[in-house]
Amino acid sequence: MVRKVGVAILGLGVVGGGTYQTIVDHHDFYLKTQQIDLTVEMVLDKSEERLNALGIPKDRWAGSIEEVLANPCVDIVVETIGGVGAAKAFVLAALRDGKTVVTSNKELICKYSHELERVAKRTGCGLYYEASCVGGVPIIRTLLDGVQANHVQKMMGIVNGTTNYILTKMTYEGADYAETLKEAQRLGYAEFDPTNDVEGFDSMYKLSILSSMAFHTKVPYTNIFREGISKICTQDIAYGKEFGYTLKLLAIGKNTEKGIEVRVHPTFIPSSHPLASVNDAFNAVYLTGDAVDDIMLYGRGAGALPTASAVVSDVIYAATHSEVKYSTFKNTEKAEAGVKFVSDFSSAYYLRLSVQDAAGVLAKISNIFGKNGISIVQISQKNGAEGDERVPLLVITHKTSESAVKNAVAKINATQLATVDAVIRVEA
Amino acid sequence: MVRKVGVAILGLGVVGGGTYQTIVDHHDFYLKTQQIDLTVEMVLDKSEERLNALGIPKDRWAGSIEEVLANPCVDIVVETIGGVGAAKAFVLAALRDGKTVVTSNKELICKYSHELERVAKRTGCGLYYEASCVGGVPIIRTLLDGVQANHVQKMMGIVNGTTNYILTKMTYEGADYAETLKEAQRLGYAEFDPTNDVEGFDSMYKLSILSSMAFHTKVPYTNIFREGISKICTQDIAYGKEFGYTLKLLAIGKNTEKGIEVRVHPTFIPSSHPLASVNDAFNAVYLTGDAVDDIMLYGRGAGALPTASAVVSDVIYAATHSEVKYSTFKNTEKAEAGVKFVSDFSSAYYLRLSVQDAAGVLAKISNIFGKNGISIVQISQKNGAEGDERVPLLVITHKTSESAVKNAVAKINATQLATVDAVIRVEA
Repeated sequence: MVRKVGVAILGLGVVGGGTYQTIVDHHDFYLKTQQIDLTVEMVLDKSEERLNALGIPKDRWAGSIEEVLANPCVDIVVETIGGVGAAKAFVLAALRDGKTVVTSNKELICKYSHELERVAKRTGCGLYYEASCVGGVPIIRTLLDGVQANHVQKMMGIVNGTTNYILTKMTYEGADYAETLKEAQRLGYAEFDPTNDVEGFDSMYKLSILSSMAFHTKVPYTNIFREGISKICTQDIAYGKEFGYTLKLLAIGKNTEKGIEVRVHPTFIPSSHPLASVNDAFNAVYLTGDAVDDIMLYGRGAGALPTASAVVSDVIYAATHSEVKYSTFKNTEKAEAGVKFVSDFSSAYYLRLSVQDAAGVLAKISNIFGKNGISIVQISQKNGAEGDERVPLLVITHKTSESAVKNAVAKINATQLATVDAVIRVEA
Repeated sequence: MVRKVGVAILGLGVVGGGTYQTIVDHHDFYLKTQQIDLTVEMVLDKSEERLNALGIPKDRWAGSIEEVLANPCVDIVVETIGGVGAAKAFVLAALRDGKTVVTSNKELICKYSHELERVAKRTGCGLYYEASCVGGVPIIRTLLDGVQANHVQKMMGIVNGTTNYILTKMTYEGADYAETLKEAQRLGYAEFDPTNDVEGFDSMYKLSILSSMAFHTKVPYTNIFREGISKICTQDIAYGKEFGYTLKLLAIGKNTEKGIEVRVHPTFIPSSHPLASVNDAFNAVYLTGDAVDDIMLYGRGAGALPTASAVVSDVIYAATHSEVKYSTFKNTEKAEAGVKFVSDFSSAYYLRLSVQDAAGVLAKISNIFGKNGISIVQISQKNGAEGDERVPLLVITHKTSESAVKNAVAKINATQLATVDAVIRVEA
């Protein structure tokens, strides 16, 4: 009882090309293990060069999305274009036409899942996007069908390969940010304009998607606190190590009694934490559920074949299951009624100050912390540079609120006796 | 469109009790997030004490499996009895009666999945067993629906909590095996008769289940090489550390051109490997697929609530999906026709010898290794105990065959100049 399943791939870049290759190479394997005769019926890409490089026969080249949708052999449309321009228009057209869509597009799903789901529900077709988050790691399948018995209380993820590569190099090779970024660009790990990755937008889109699923309410990306890694000094990574911390760009989601707390920022975590040893371009998501306790999924967050693994696994899932699970929350554009978001979140903090090396200064600063209700776990004064009037002072605080820290920082800077040069949040 | 789903739980021990608690505590949560009204309609356990301790209302107590199956409100039967006696009879009865079964029973699935699947296919009901392997970690869901686009080439798992707890204590606290086992028994981490865990039977059952799924052929447990941890000396763990290795009881499955290779044994892995930092009662499975590359799933491998998370996630899956995926291989009792198993596998080895501290001995031993085609990576002579004629000699070999090592060991022992006191396989 073999079933024929035809796929069209829109966008034959890194992920689309990997998807094409994976389907072609595994044809007989899927026939045997999944009882499906899976073939790429059409491809759509402006670049003939790409299509030729992949060796795709010319009779499969489509000239337009209309041509793709008019082909009765196409059951599933794979979108690997990226962005929210053509990708959005094509996905909507496919869904309107009753074609199931598999996409790797995090920005599209993050920003427009409500529009896409509405159409998909109406026409009764599927919308799958495992590949949009954490490459080949089946985190979405896990949230939907692996830990769905749990209230997910907390999620911490290293979900961007570029920034993890950069931070790993800064941590283990001591190079500075600008230098490491250049090297990453040279190696193709970072784009020419790296903003999307290094400023945390990519992680933010993924956190919006994952926390929406985990917490059973749309978590709009506009509710996510976001800070990138472009201001990180290698010196702070080294100081953090002395306190037993490792620096990672984390996407953090918490579902607490006070509300949902979602944030992306450079974070010190204990070096013994499983996430601390996730290095280079590897990614991982660490989840805590009320029954399962802690689990972690680890793997390659990007790359042609790892991401294609997620795309094709979704294609096979779509081809072999009739039920489609859409978001179960009512409003897929905004958060559910009654859901609160915590904006003034609490955290422990690492602060690096430059202080005048004079009597009474430390007392003044301590006083400012105290007045803002910030209690201190550890304080450590370092040697300054030769001839420098000011010396570095490192402070680790107990858990306190973001607003208290902001106030304290402003007050300290106003004293003229010290400046706060780095503020890094700490998670246990 | 809420659907009523009734569950019966057979066996209210640790996992069954956790399952009862999880379903009761999450009733409203599942109503909201899964649109199912999930209730425990009946329970079956000989011990009234247990049922009372869990606070289960008496009108839900069943006196027999017949009473459970006669209840029209029971849609899904959860089996958490364990073993292959009553558990097998009850599961078969439920399946014959057209009830979907969710089980945590690794021995039952490993030994009798062919009988159970045959009946399930005939009566059209589901058979789910995520909880049989690695507690709350959704490894079976991942193999079925997360990485199914891949040829899985290799799998290495720490799949038994008791032995990982014991080895972690031996590694970090230096206590010996007997002492640590006693402590584990006192804490309830090891059973009174620990054979099933410490001799690797439990890991073997799980490896049979997981490698069958990963390699798309039944992998009978009788094909698995098995060696437990009861003969491990703490001294070897310490010596291994000097070479950069950490000792773990691994379940290893490889699908190579020569055939399928499946084995459970204490294994040295590089201390930098992600599995090396999986400690105490935590478990993890490290998979390599031809597209996804390396991924790892990590979490609690046992315990009431983590295992219940897997049981109840299966129950929800069964209640919300109509397609059941049975094994796709034809013969679920034996390996598929044409599948070969590698019995004389290859590995690197750590050997600890006691050698006479005399001229010419090392040359003789080296000669034996050479004649058996074993080449040596590293050799290190240690100081012996005061007054001891013999001194420890540690040898790390390149990859070689198990049979070559066995021959060499026999030859060395026959010299009377040295004995081989420990043989531990090394994986990269």
